[in-house]
Amino acid sequence: MAYVNANYLKLKAGYLFPEIGRRVKAYAVAHPDAKIIRCGIGDVTEPLAPAVIAAMHKAVDDQAKRETFQGYGDEQGYGFLREAIAKHDFQSRGAEITHDEIFVSDGSKCDTGNILDIFGDKNVIAVTDPVYPVYVDTNVMAGHTGQSNDKNEYAGLVYLPSTPANDFSPPPPKQKVDIVYLCSPNNPTGAVLGKAALTKWVEYARANNAIIFFDAAYEAYITDASVPHSIYEIPGARECAIEFRSFSKTAGFTGTRCAFTVVPKTLKGQGPDGAPVDIYKLWMRRHTTKFNGVSYITQCGAAAAYSPEGKPQVKQLVDFYMGNARLIREGLTAQGFKVFGGVNAPYVWVQTKNGMTSWDFFDKLLDQAHVVVTPGSGFGASGEGYFRVSSFNSRPNVEEALRRIKEKI
Amino acid sequence: MAYVNANYLKLKAGYLFPEIGRRVKAYAVAHPDAKIIRCGIGDVTEPLAPAVIAAMHKAVDDQAKRETFQGYGDEQGYGFLREAIAKHDFQSRGAEITHDEIFVSDGSKCDTGNILDIFGDKNVIAVTDPVYPVYVDTNVMAGHTGQSNDKNEYAGLVYLPSTPANDFSPPPPKQKVDIVYLCSPNNPTGAVLGKAALTKWVEYARANNAIIFFDAAYEAYITDASVPHSIYEIPGARECAIEFRSFSKTAGFTGTRCAFTVVPKTLKGQGPDGAPVDIYKLWMRRHTTKFNGVSYITQCGAAAAYSPEGKPQVKQLVDFYMGNARLIREGLTAQGFKVFGGVNAPYVWVQTKNGMTSWDFFDKLLDQAHVVVTPGSGFGASGEGYFRVSSFNSRPNVEEALRRIKEKI
Repeated sequence: MAYVNANYLKLKAGYLFPEIGRRVKAYAVAHPDAKIIRCGIGDVTEPLAPAVIAAMHKAVDDQAKRETFQGYGDEQGYGFLREAIAKHDFQSRGAEITHDEIFVSDGSKCDTGNILDIFGDKNVIAVTDPVYPVYVDTNVMAGHTGQSNDKNEYAGLVYLPSTPANDFSPPPPKQKVDIVYLCSPNNPTGAVLGKAALTKWVEYARANNAIIFFDAAYEAYITDASVPHSIYEIPGARECAIEFRSFSKTAGFTGTRCAFTVVPKTLKGQGPDGAPVDIYKLWMRRHTTKFNGVSYITQCGAAAAYSPEGKPQVKQLVDFYMGNARLIREGLTAQGFKVFGGVNAPYVWVQTKNGMTSWDFFDKLLDQAHVVVTPGSGFGASGEGYFRVSSFNSRPNVEEALRRIKEKI
Repeated sequence: MAYVNANYLKLKAGYLFPEIGRRVKAYAVAHPDAKIIRCGIGDVTEPLAPAVIAAMHKAVDDQAKRETFQGYGDEQGYGFLREAIAKHDFQSRGAEITHDEIFVSDGSKCDTGNILDIFGDKNVIAVTDPVYPVYVDTNVMAGHTGQSNDKNEYAGLVYLPSTPANDFSPPPPKQKVDIVYLCSPNNPTGAVLGKAALTKWVEYARANNAIIFFDAAYEAYITDASVPHSIYEIPGARECAIEFRSFSKTAGFTGTRCAFTVVPKTLKGQGPDGAPVDIYKLWMRRHTTKFNGVSYITQCGAAAAYSPEGKPQVKQLVDFYMGNARLIREGLTAQGFKVFGGVNAPYVWVQTKNGMTSWDFFDKLLDQAHVVVTPGSGFGASGEGYFRVSSFNSRPNVEEALRRIKEKI
């Protein structure tokens, strides 16, 4: 028989969100009258912005006529979209990123997994803990870890605990690592890395020849003007960072699928002989060989999010969810919960009561309040005893969920 | 510095199509008056079917209203699409494939590369030669090969030459291999595997515990009723094959992006201890962890290709391109070329004249006739001395290209 990738056999249980889906489905089947409110998976609920809708209708019409029909596009993404991204997301904030350093894709989940393709298997890899599970699982799949222990920690990975003591933003480790994942605004804790903290990371990376995988999928949710939206706002980051961005949460594209990755041409890794290798060229080769571009219609929609009409419409969507975040923060605080995040991020990170485990509290909330949250331990050992509440929801759902938690928990 | 995946450094030159693009661009810059006709890359030219357009407009409207808005969908693809696929593409042809064995994706290029993620690195891998370069390049990237020789053959791969002597359909090899890539209708030769030939491959795979990666991206172009469209029409294939399908050439989706992969639940590989492992479960884990589903709008469009209105419209597109294929076959034959394929496939495979190499003939055609074809040697050593002509073009372009080749070459 053909040999399978035995690293997959190290993976524990299912990916977090399918496991939540399984429990919720089982509960719903057993309790068909329960009106379940989902504050678990971070999925948007509000319709796309009118400018995006108009652009996609036009793009569909383009596909209906021979003169405007689009076949294979540039695998890197259409120039019109990459130029809008470079201008609005980077150059306008003083970050020197050009359109040809941007790779449009169908999702940051895909990109943060696929990026490992171009790296070797001898790198020491660090993640903050709790952490978006995809970072860890894709390293397990790629054979960068050993087995996991009973806290679901994999041998070989360097875990950097995020705790109230460090404001959920662990500083760079003492030891040398080669690759580190940073997510700011953070999923799941909602913490952000300010300019000083991010500068320390860039200095660490440059001193240790490390590469930072900077996931900024939630940057649109930053409300504090002093917090960087891109790591490239920090001098020196072009020499040590890859940045991941998405339209999923910025413009409500979770079902429409568009994201991008920034790989500066100045970024280097090392080959087997220790000689420097351009990371940009490797990612270009990967992207053009194993990917075929994003739907023309989707890219037209994404570009419209930067238009004079689209920009305020998209901001309104973000503001709406941040209004939810405020309600959740204030509501749960008033109910005596210890609450973090939710100020510069759509996620509110909450301590369980009476020292309950995350999954026990998940089951209790589901059973007594019919409210679904995300158990913190699903994001890593340091997430134990916490749960994540997503503010991606309709206003009535948020209000009803808070009311039920107040009454039933 | 972070270690790069050194296997990427084994890759020779650029991926074939970017290299063609580079030469054509350089020629166009140097000869701004040349009216270049592209018969190189296999990219569709005709607008999408009206039923597909209507379905996508409706889907865009769904995204504009909260009641019908779609966020994250099932990573495997919407049920409505997977059920249409299972019924129309498989069950109607007697192939026992169910909707839950179908994984909707954004492209077969992606899928045929990504599938290697779930396999180990000890497999002996066979490809026919010439071959779609992605199969080879992704194996190089995954570290399944050694270095390449001066014919661009990589050490460690088993090449099965496709030649006129075997009707461009090499039989199973004498040696045992673990994985073999078959593409029927073939890119680039246009050859097809009939029922008898495919049965031999299934028997070989079952006798050797091998897995067949069956790429049927061009199945819609089969005109001979006796030729299987799916490998699952052959008894036993559920135990030994993964099938790749695409809407790119079937419904003109190269710029709209939709494809799918079929992984039967009955397919097994082996773990490190030799115990059988479900391939289905591994691919499900890969697909849900490193992918986030295809755009709702795109999936609605793809499903419309199976509707009572859509089906004949899509067939008309295929018939149009096959009309081009006939013109190319007959035209080049009349001009004294040795011509293959183009009967059950959109590709015509043509021998160069006077023993010229593929790239020399490519340059001659570009320079003298301003016609772009694909050099056969770009598909592998056995493609040397051939070129591929794509029938994906407008009718006037096909006629003009043939006229120019007749006059200038």
